[in-house]
Amino acid sequence: MTSTAHPTAVSRHGVIAPVDGEIVLGEGLLGRWQRRNRRVTIPHGIERLETEGALDNLRGLIGETDAPFRGPVFADSDVHKVLEAVAWELGHGEDPALRRFYEDTVALLAAVQDEDGYLDSAFQRADRVQRRWTDFAAGHELYCTGHLIQAAVASVRALGDDRLLAAATRAADLVVRLFGGPESPAYPGHPEIEYALVELYRLTGRAEYLDTAKAFIDRRGSGWLGRGAFGAAYFQDDAPLRETTVMRGHAVRALYLNSGATDVFLETGDDTLLRALTSQWDDMATRRSYLTGGTGSRHRDEAFGDAYELPSDRAYAETCAGIGAMHWAWRMYQATGKARFGDFFETALYNVVADGVSEDGAAFFYSNPLQLRPDHVSVQEEAAARRLGWYFCACCPPNLMRTFASIEGYLAGTRGAELQLLQYTASHIETRLVGERVVLDVDTEYPLDGRIRITVVEGGGGTLALRIPSWCVSHEVTIDGRPLDVPVDAGWLRLDGALTAGSVVVLELGMPARVLTAHRRVDAVRGCVAVRRGPIVYCLEQGDNASDVDDVAVDPSLPIVVGDGMTPLGPAITARGGVRRGDGALYSTLTGEACDESVGTVELRMRPYATWGNGRPGAMRVWVPVS
Amino acid sequence: MTSTAHPTAVSRHGVIAPVDGEIVLGEGLLGRWQRRNRRVTIPHGIERLETEGALDNLRGLIGETDAPFRGPVFADSDVHKVLEAVAWELGHGEDPALRRFYEDTVALLAAVQDEDGYLDSAFQRADRVQRRWTDFAAGHELYCTGHLIQAAVASVRALGDDRLLAAATRAADLVVRLFGGPESPAYPGHPEIEYALVELYRLTGRAEYLDTAKAFIDRRGSGWLGRGAFGAAYFQDDAPLRETTVMRGHAVRALYLNSGATDVFLETGDDTLLRALTSQWDDMATRRSYLTGGTGSRHRDEAFGDAYELPSDRAYAETCAGIGAMHWAWRMYQATGKARFGDFFETALYNVVADGVSEDGAAFFYSNPLQLRPDHVSVQEEAAARRLGWYFCACCPPNLMRTFASIEGYLAGTRGAELQLLQYTASHIETRLVGERVVLDVDTEYPLDGRIRITVVEGGGGTLALRIPSWCVSHEVTIDGRPLDVPVDAGWLRLDGALTAGSVVVLELGMPARVLTAHRRVDAVRGCVAVRRGPIVYCLEQGDNASDVDDVAVDPSLPIVVGDGMTPLGPAITARGGVRRGDGALYSTLTGEACDESVGTVELRMRPYATWGNGRPGAMRVWVPVS
Repeated sequence: MTSTAHPTAVSRHGVIAPVDGEIVLGEGLLGRWQRRNRRVTIPHGIERLETEGALDNLRGLIGETDAPFRGPVFADSDVHKVLEAVAWELGHGEDPALRRFYEDTVALLAAVQDEDGYLDSAFQRADRVQRRWTDFAAGHELYCTGHLIQAAVASVRALGDDRLLAAATRAADLVVRLFGGPESPAYPGHPEIEYALVELYRLTGRAEYLDTAKAFIDRRGSGWLGRGAFGAAYFQDDAPLRETTVMRGHAVRALYLNSGATDVFLETGDDTLLRALTSQWDDMATRRSYLTGGTGSRHRDEAFGDAYELPSDRAYAETCAGIGAMHWAWRMYQATGKARFGDFFETALYNVVADGVSEDGAAFFYSNPLQLRPDHVSVQEEAAARRLGWYFCACCPPNLMRTFASIEGYLAGTRGAELQLLQYTASHIETRLVGERVVLDVDTEYPLDGRIRITVVEGGGGTLALRIPSWCVSHEVTIDGRPLDVPVDAGWLRLDGALTAGSVVVLELGMPARVLTAHRRVDAVRGCVAVRRGPIVYCLEQGDNASDVDDVAVDPSLPIVVGDGMTPLGPAITARGGVRRGDGALYSTLTGEACDESVGTVELRMRPYATWGNGRPGAMRVWVPVS
Repeated sequence: MTSTAHPTAVSRHGVIAPVDGEIVLGEGLLGRWQRRNRRVTIPHGIERLETEGALDNLRGLIGETDAPFRGPVFADSDVHKVLEAVAWELGHGEDPALRRFYEDTVALLAAVQDEDGYLDSAFQRADRVQRRWTDFAAGHELYCTGHLIQAAVASVRALGDDRLLAAATRAADLVVRLFGGPESPAYPGHPEIEYALVELYRLTGRAEYLDTAKAFIDRRGSGWLGRGAFGAAYFQDDAPLRETTVMRGHAVRALYLNSGATDVFLETGDDTLLRALTSQWDDMATRRSYLTGGTGSRHRDEAFGDAYELPSDRAYAETCAGIGAMHWAWRMYQATGKARFGDFFETALYNVVADGVSEDGAAFFYSNPLQLRPDHVSVQEEAAARRLGWYFCACCPPNLMRTFASIEGYLAGTRGAELQLLQYTASHIETRLVGERVVLDVDTEYPLDGRIRITVVEGGGGTLALRIPSWCVSHEVTIDGRPLDVPVDAGWLRLDGALTAGSVVVLELGMPARVLTAHRRVDAVRGCVAVRRGPIVYCLEQGDNASDVDDVAVDPSLPIVVGDGMTPLGPAITARGGVRRGDGALYSTLTGEACDESVGTVELRMRPYATWGNGRPGAMRVWVPVS
């Protein structure tokens, strides 16, 4: 394995650098997810690229098939994302089927690319009439190019293979040639290429990639994309990014855009960008995000809603938006070193993103609501009541594939002589810290439990910084068995000198079940509580409960029992409360008949949110009324 | 004025007949609305038919203009609906401008109609490529034909003019010829023509119109329309109407369909229809409707949601759905004689429908949410924060025009020797009751106050039945000053012999402000109350209040004062409660810091919901948290 086989590389202005070395996942939760992804999800995705036509769309360009174009205009991006996932996985170790897909697809992409570098089957195909570069709002050509670049970056970093990079740079050079100059007004309707270009700049050192990414960010907000069906704000094109303090419009577009803009900051040090991005982050974190880390409150335009508009049942909370928030959080962490970005990353990863894939790894949610009503009929894939094997708009499944295949790249960062553990999972870390080799073994079942044991195998006395999650109200830390009394500094526990060979640091994060309430303005969950243990949000699922989950109320004064059964994301939890009966009118006078009498006390069995929907279909809810 | 100038005529199987005679609105609320409609709204609509291109779409067919086709595919229906409104108004009295529009438009429609009876400019125009009768799901040809028929019915009933009827019957005959036979699988993607055809049958006695309406109802549910963007349920095409007990899919489509199906029942007596319609009505009334009588919980497909999915902020509650519910309620009343349909009609009329038009009569809401958040930015006309002068999809404004122009047709019904007053407003009623002439004067400011004075000018001793609204918990009734102690029978107060010349009946409906709560499963308004006085739903509007309406909480134990200022829909109301301060985290532990402290007691000034949005823009909410 090559070193620095991570999605992002060191930046010029970041206060945090990605680990310059190798992280190998062990027998913890993320390791299990990565292996399931390799064993089941990616092969499933490769099969669907065949059966749904995405590969044939490309093959048809060189006469290998007569099949008509299928899928959405951005179908190529599904191929690129699976290819990126496969590259990361081949970096983890060889596999004949993955290798075959990789070799075939790299060759196919090179074969279909036009002389001038253009590569987008939806516009190259003779059975499609749209002209190239005429529909920036909806055409997704720059979006697809961005995903091609990211796949190429993965194949270089994970495999040292630059064949795909050749195709990607030819495509990127075309973009630079056409749209990089000051005379061009262009930018993509769906951001993506911005952070791909910055990473290509990091890989190649060619400044025109960074400049073009910056131009796309700078130009946006002029209204040049038009209003489309949902207005300019849908595209974040209603105002320049630097003048905007709120999150609005299509959630995935907004999060990819801000990831790209953060990368541009990381390379340019342009504070006007970081200030706007920080305001927008705060707006998202404090007014427009779900307890699960999901974003996007509206189905109609898959968009952020008004402040505090956070319905559970109609939460869109697209899986890709969860991943986009992880991308942005990771870059904001690099820009600022602040632990809170790690908190958000963790919340999204273990809740909204984890929810996106089934326990068996072969079925997917596109939207991730926090409530499913008992009679919900999903006539549309956008509001599916169960995970589906694939989607017409199949952006989410391949996004999950590349995320789990490269998740180790987001676990730690370095700041001078300090190694920061941002996320905890069983892993082996080898890095360099101001020239000094550092090797750690992290042993933990986190977030299933809160004990993290870190053995320093090699080290020269540097600082180990441990993120204390904002949900954590009590923790203990020992070094070589001796308790330490170190204050938490803005989410970081800094253990100076701990990176000394032979040291054993044990961090114990208190992880009781906590009962949470929402801000008074979140109308959708007024009078309700949610249960969270560590980063894991819980839910009531009908299959676990005898009483109708839409008629129960929890009594937070009664004890909540952790550990009544185990799930892949942690112990089941039992709360207590009542059941409300009686039909009741839809609207009645407040002093009317007591039709909602509560009967007895019942046990309310809760499970980690991301594990719901793997058993018998039925209702689900994260927020439960208080009795 | 001709007699029976009402939208619906007597049916074969209805237990209630529309009044066989004339109802003239007086100086009450509905009279004021009807006059505003005539004076402002209809002239405004005529102007917009010019400026938005709907009339030119037709004129272009006969070479009167070169303007390209503008507006949605169903733009003709806007012309038909305004024409219907104008016909009803010319029946109320002549007006030069209305007459000119009427004559010009009747002549224009006759001139552009094809030899075979086809009349739909969106498909007749050379600048539009779609072939006729090829897109039943979205083409709206039958929908437009239905509105043409309804305009023609109005011109016959209100004016005795059968010129438009000639065009409408030619168009209807084409529909019968093409799609009336048993070999045709066709039915409209947007129901409308069904109840138009039944009314045409009532007017002409030609059974093929009824048969074709019945065929459209009977065929629906086969999935023949395809899935479109939102699935077959969007079109109510997922299952036959007779096998369906729930409301689902696009709300206006569903309500127009059920209005047509009820009309088919009224003429055929087919109980299998009425049973299904009754179940669907109950589902709507008890699980899928807003306190305002609005329906449609989802913006994405303008559709009914799951049971109890009734968000205030994202309520779609389209004005046309409110009108559709009135149409359906009126027909269910004719089918059953049940007062509860009058209750729903009244709720919809004075809340969601009244909300659709501004105080000045020249601006309109398309969706009628029950909450507007303080920072709501309406980038789309579908979620406008203020009433707009017109819409690209302009279905609602002309629908309001024809509704107010014919509202007197929905106020009363007869059942043998019984005259039933279903809605109360100042009016003069002349009718025949089993051959006997009956003349009443109704004097009232209802629903501004609860006193209704009915003077029997002529009458032969028949029964007067008065609807006691379900919201009314106390009432008094006198005849010639003598109190009567008559039990309420399923919402009806029957006064035998009261229809005697010279009798004066005074009904006093107790109309205190009532504090309402919603069914426990309506998650969106848990922990909230609403205030209603009589049929009028109230709201908090920011412009009336110093405290932020999203931070206040009402204390229902404190007195609620009625009468603190007057609005066009009744007195203002003052409740009392607290204000919650402190920024507060988006999510925090239940036992966390008391960041939501309540400060002092404040007056919460409430106004009738339908009057909001006429002053300074700002937040609004119907449901207010309880302190």
